[in-house]
Amino acid sequence: MFSKDTYIARREGLKKSVGSGLLLFLGNDEVGRNFEDNYYRYRQDSSFLYYFGQPYAGLNAVIDIDNNREIIFGDELSIDHIVWMGTQPTLHEKAHGVGIDTTLPSADLRKYLDAARAAGQRIHTLPTYRPEHQLKLWRLLDILPGTDTPSVDFIRAIVNQRNYKSAEEVEEIERACNVTADMHIEAIRCTRPGMKEYEVVARLEEVAAANDCTLSFGTIATINGQTLHNPCHSNTIGPEDMLLVDAGAETPMGYSGDMSSTVCAGKKFTPRQKMVYDIQVASHRAAVEMLRPGVKFLDCYEKSAEVICQGMKDLGIMKGDPVEAVKAGAHAMFFPCGLGHMMGLDDHDMENLGEVYVGYDGKPKSTQFGRKSLRLARELEPGFVLTIEPGVYFIPELIDYWGAEGRFKEFINYDELNKWRDFGGIRNEEDYLITPDGARMLGKKIPLTTEEVEAMR
Amino acid sequence: MFSKDTYIARREGLKKSVGSGLLLFLGNDEVGRNFEDNYYRYRQDSSFLYYFGQPYAGLNAVIDIDNNREIIFGDELSIDHIVWMGTQPTLHEKAHGVGIDTTLPSADLRKYLDAARAAGQRIHTLPTYRPEHQLKLWRLLDILPGTDTPSVDFIRAIVNQRNYKSAEEVEEIERACNVTADMHIEAIRCTRPGMKEYEVVARLEEVAAANDCTLSFGTIATINGQTLHNPCHSNTIGPEDMLLVDAGAETPMGYSGDMSSTVCAGKKFTPRQKMVYDIQVASHRAAVEMLRPGVKFLDCYEKSAEVICQGMKDLGIMKGDPVEAVKAGAHAMFFPCGLGHMMGLDDHDMENLGEVYVGYDGKPKSTQFGRKSLRLARELEPGFVLTIEPGVYFIPELIDYWGAEGRFKEFINYDELNKWRDFGGIRNEEDYLITPDGARMLGKKIPLTTEEVEAMR
Repeated sequence: MFSKDTYIARREGLKKSVGSGLLLFLGNDEVGRNFEDNYYRYRQDSSFLYYFGQPYAGLNAVIDIDNNREIIFGDELSIDHIVWMGTQPTLHEKAHGVGIDTTLPSADLRKYLDAARAAGQRIHTLPTYRPEHQLKLWRLLDILPGTDTPSVDFIRAIVNQRNYKSAEEVEEIERACNVTADMHIEAIRCTRPGMKEYEVVARLEEVAAANDCTLSFGTIATINGQTLHNPCHSNTIGPEDMLLVDAGAETPMGYSGDMSSTVCAGKKFTPRQKMVYDIQVASHRAAVEMLRPGVKFLDCYEKSAEVICQGMKDLGIMKGDPVEAVKAGAHAMFFPCGLGHMMGLDDHDMENLGEVYVGYDGKPKSTQFGRKSLRLARELEPGFVLTIEPGVYFIPELIDYWGAEGRFKEFINYDELNKWRDFGGIRNEEDYLITPDGARMLGKKIPLTTEEVEAMR
Repeated sequence: MFSKDTYIARREGLKKSVGSGLLLFLGNDEVGRNFEDNYYRYRQDSSFLYYFGQPYAGLNAVIDIDNNREIIFGDELSIDHIVWMGTQPTLHEKAHGVGIDTTLPSADLRKYLDAARAAGQRIHTLPTYRPEHQLKLWRLLDILPGTDTPSVDFIRAIVNQRNYKSAEEVEEIERACNVTADMHIEAIRCTRPGMKEYEVVARLEEVAAANDCTLSFGTIATINGQTLHNPCHSNTIGPEDMLLVDAGAETPMGYSGDMSSTVCAGKKFTPRQKMVYDIQVASHRAAVEMLRPGVKFLDCYEKSAEVICQGMKDLGIMKGDPVEAVKAGAHAMFFPCGLGHMMGLDDHDMENLGEVYVGYDGKPKSTQFGRKSLRLARELEPGFVLTIEPGVYFIPELIDYWGAEGRFKEFINYDELNKWRDFGGIRNEEDYLITPDGARMLGKKIPLTTEEVEAMR
């Protein structure tokens, strides 16, 4: 945890920003996997972590702006709990550690909120992303599941703090990025034809665990790189396959790293693989070169998409003007996702608070296939931490789906494209901090080009 | 998955056993970790797996006994889902794979249940163990969260099938046990003074992942073995520490292994450690020797507890008659948990259905501290798979708690005990199948005695 001053200052900033009312923070509880006490590895809610620091289940908190009170609600451990799970700091110690003097038993939270409602206070709540949150809102505030109305003021105030990473946060993120880089370097080194995908996963996840980190998201390690978020690890890696790995470490404080790499199973990429790989790298570099305050991330996305379209045109797979193709949305055949996303206490930072607020500064998102998946489009500012991860994908199902209706046939040569339908997909990903005059890569460098990958094999 | 005949036969048996009504199976959904789409690794509900086999989110099922219908409710994948997560079998293929002909869209489940209720059919439901289950019961059956009344007939019918493992299940469990044994052997081999606990965890979990297994529960690897289910891995292992590891693999089909080992950080155990270790081994062996059909597991527990009390008496920590001490409950100072539990598709098999049904055949449990934590007490029968895991623990908080009130001072020499308060804890655990004439250990052998552990270092 950071020092208590950090948490006090964050809460002060939040109170000033929202102005009035009562802010309700629902801490995360344990989640049963296949029975109640067989918990998934515990993860605290990230906004709770940001303002209250404590990574323990069973806590909720209130910032009562109108009455200038900050309270953590929880319960002391029973002797049974201590015998089974070990000791923890007392509730008072947990609160004191983040600069809060008042603690109350969990059972008092409902009463406190009842009194606030009776007094006409506005209760600000955040969006729910677990069923347990919906049950809590129902039990605490009589809000029927699915009918809650999160406070936009509360959301925007949090986003306006969490989007700007402090020096101590950047240091922690960089720690996650360094472990993340080591995970990828291990994967690049160990991948061999004949291995199962899960054997590579085992090696790279061992690196995270040996550095006291968890995973910031479920590891992707697949010979079917064209599936953007492939959760399957059961294939055998063939001699001419590429393995796409997208994986990241999360530090004990909850900060994320997130990188991707694409490695050849053999010693060298095939000439055909190298052609597409070079397009991906050019697209990646075009985006990175643009990173600086004042630039819209949407423009970086469009630039990287244009580079991909130009590359596809050079291969005879696309035709026409790449800029026009991107405007129309034809690039999404090969690049159906975003260029990157904010990263911090969440891998997709604050995704639960809404991408419109985090990545669009409240402005509406496009509904176009591909563009609608952009998590980040806003003008960049110093302190933003984000990923850069363009990809080039050949998705047989999408080729058939669009091809059947001849979609974008003015930009796409379907006959030519079908010769590449089994190619797979390539993605590389790095993490950047926007600085006052540009951008800085976070964490040690991992191989980006075919030459760099081959040199590590 | 097993062949479709297995699932058909299981459902036939279940229908006969319950007799009438409609059986509702809620499949598990994805659970967001820190935001909705950052899923924990998916785990299907075990009863759903047992009767319907399919390890996919978004499914529910009905066995309508009265109308002789079996239906899986779900939805086909959208193109967006395929682009992001890859293809899956179609809903019909999923159903057909387990011998079911009828599938319906998820939205039809509510209508189907409405019609069943209107027709006066009894709807049998199971206990909920995730908030999502409570929300589902509310949405499907108007049952307010926390007010559901699970069907005892349904529970008992499932328990009466799942408690008896078939040959193909035993084979799958043994696969999990072999990987589990390799995890422990790796931990025993790699543990060294100066390592962090999490470095050992990284090594042993790598073994599970490299064998295409997940973890059947959160790994315990601690120098504070006296905490029964210690989730913390951040300590440095000292030269005179012991590391207690309790960990298990789960196969892709969902079957569990679960073993424990206690290793010395140095080359040899200290004489003091060996004294307690030998007591634990004697207790373990006394229980194993008793395993056969017709024996009550409660008697095995009491025998193992008596051996521990005799050992403590030999060390001068206890006094009086060990048999009387166990009757009174004084052994729980050192052995405050059960001797073992059923194991199968869950590590604690069917814990969500209720230990009273699984481990007690419907008879009430003791409320005595220690004895109340027995998950299994019933008469053993062929086909049961269970763990044997007595432990000897010195729990400072419990010593102080009982000591302050002089509890069991006729059996416990608190002055002597206090000299051991920082000793820690020792547990070893193996998995057994009850056979027609005895018991068979499942999976390869891991070191049990100090000599066996030291020989592997």
